[in-house]
Amino acid sequence: MNSATASKSTSRLLAADNLQNLLDSVDAFLFDCDGVIWKGDELIDGVAQTLDFLRSKGKKLVFVTNNSTKSRRQYAQKFRSVGISVTEDEMFSSSFAAAMFLKVNNFPKDKKVYVIGEEGILEELKLAGFTGLGGPEDGKKTAELKPNHLFEHDKSVGAVVVGLDRYINYYKLQYGTLCIRENPGCLFIATNRDAVGHMTNLQEWPGAGCMVAAICGTTEKEPIVVGKPSTFLMDFLIEKFHISCSRMCMVGDRLDTDILFGQNAGCKTLLVLSGVTNLTTLQDDSNKIIPDYYTSKVSDIFEFMGP
Amino acid sequence: MNSATASKSTSRLLAADNLQNLLDSVDAFLFDCDGVIWKGDELIDGVAQTLDFLRSKGKKLVFVTNNSTKSRRQYAQKFRSVGISVTEDEMFSSSFAAAMFLKVNNFPKDKKVYVIGEEGILEELKLAGFTGLGGPEDGKKTAELKPNHLFEHDKSVGAVVVGLDRYINYYKLQYGTLCIRENPGCLFIATNRDAVGHMTNLQEWPGAGCMVAAICGTTEKEPIVVGKPSTFLMDFLIEKFHISCSRMCMVGDRLDTDILFGQNAGCKTLLVLSGVTNLTTLQDDSNKIIPDYYTSKVSDIFEFMGP
Repeated sequence: MNSATASKSTSRLLAADNLQNLLDSVDAFLFDCDGVIWKGDELIDGVAQTLDFLRSKGKKLVFVTNNSTKSRRQYAQKFRSVGISVTEDEMFSSSFAAAMFLKVNNFPKDKKVYVIGEEGILEELKLAGFTGLGGPEDGKKTAELKPNHLFEHDKSVGAVVVGLDRYINYYKLQYGTLCIRENPGCLFIATNRDAVGHMTNLQEWPGAGCMVAAICGTTEKEPIVVGKPSTFLMDFLIEKFHISCSRMCMVGDRLDTDILFGQNAGCKTLLVLSGVTNLTTLQDDSNKIIPDYYTSKVSDIFEFMGP
Repeated sequence: MNSATASKSTSRLLAADNLQNLLDSVDAFLFDCDGVIWKGDELIDGVAQTLDFLRSKGKKLVFVTNNSTKSRRQYAQKFRSVGISVTEDEMFSSSFAAAMFLKVNNFPKDKKVYVIGEEGILEELKLAGFTGLGGPEDGKKTAELKPNHLFEHDKSVGAVVVGLDRYINYYKLQYGTLCIRENPGCLFIATNRDAVGHMTNLQEWPGAGCMVAAICGTTEKEPIVVGKPSTFLMDFLIEKFHISCSRMCMVGDRLDTDILFGQNAGCKTLLVLSGVTNLTTLQDDSNKIIPDYYTSKVSDIFEFMGP
């Protein structure tokens, strides 16, 4: 049985022998961040040495995250603060993806973008030359439900971007809903639809999937998703690094975003069990998303192959 | 062609002749409130005289609303404040339905109920002998996302009730999500799933469907719905008034809640165009929910038949 056949039906536990095959067959590793590189603000043990090891083997590293609260610049800062040096160009966040989606689709510069989300989305919109509204500055606003009082919204909003928003409120929900329901042709863009995420190291919290679902509930419309598992982001990676997807390996802790994202794009896939997925979930009969390889954590690569 | 056959394929405009037939064939009128009796805080013209007229003809009146922000007592007060006298027993709100659902299903009195919603749900829970948590008192709370800080929730919560919440925040979303995901057997009850509603007279606002979808998004579970178009409420009406559903007429402004609710229960149905549905929507080919009758507003009944 060749490995291509085996990989479609079963996932292989990473070990010294098959790891060498994996390293020989890929030129780039794409890493999810939360649950893979860190949990909350805490770096997962052995990550720094493992990244250094992969760089020393000439591998390109790319950090892909569905967390839209930060911009690429803010993510690069976070990496540096935990002792890992990356460039902004190595970072691909769903906040950046939202701005790039508008750019490649020639979103008119005279139209505005309403944001249900945090600073990262607004910063990426600005860097791409778009005018963002909402976000953090609407976090303290309250909706006045008084007779004969009309809640006004900007008629020049042509897109609503919805991501994780820890300051979600009724004002923002009404604002975004009115734009999508009443402004002709207004786009509804979701950074991603993760149900929950490790916003802190001890537990999971509602993810962007919560806010996106809320807007689906009021508008009765479905969004365009730009983060994982959509392959919109992958098109950028291909163009940027000129590496074919079959020579990339997607490393992540989620089957339905990371691993599916890698598979949709034709990459090799490695599941790490240091985040939201455990071995029981992976091996359950109901799970149909089977990564090529799995291992407990990223640093196993260094353990098996390092000096 | 008899009327039963006709009513399945086309809706008839209410007029003096068919109205007499309708009055002869029903003993009770069930009214939706928002968009039928009032818009926001404003009574729709001619409603008071029409209700008086129907009472004078010996018809039983019941006011059914999916709006969960008020209790039956608070609704009766609102009716009196606009000059319409009703008893609490004539009121059936989705807040009351949530409490009654727990009661008829013998929800244990030592378990608690977490509320994403407003005062009406908490009051109905209390009147039914249950302990409610959350609701308005969690409206000002903020979730602390700090390393090594655990967001604690009450392990004795056995049900989460989600309704319209104009003070929705990340704290409540995390609290409700943790109860449903982590407390074994915890029920997820939705008062209703209306996308939007006329919370004020000039425009629509996000309805309970927004908050319910948000919790579906984080928990990846579907709720038990107790308000319209679920017929849970109808079982109460039948037991209380001993009138068969075929001798009831449901009057409402929404096809997918009011009219469907009436049809599911085997009632006659009358759509009024004074709320969210207009004639174009009713007559659109894509609409599959056809009421027996339609008219512009409730007071047409009085206009056609009154003195």
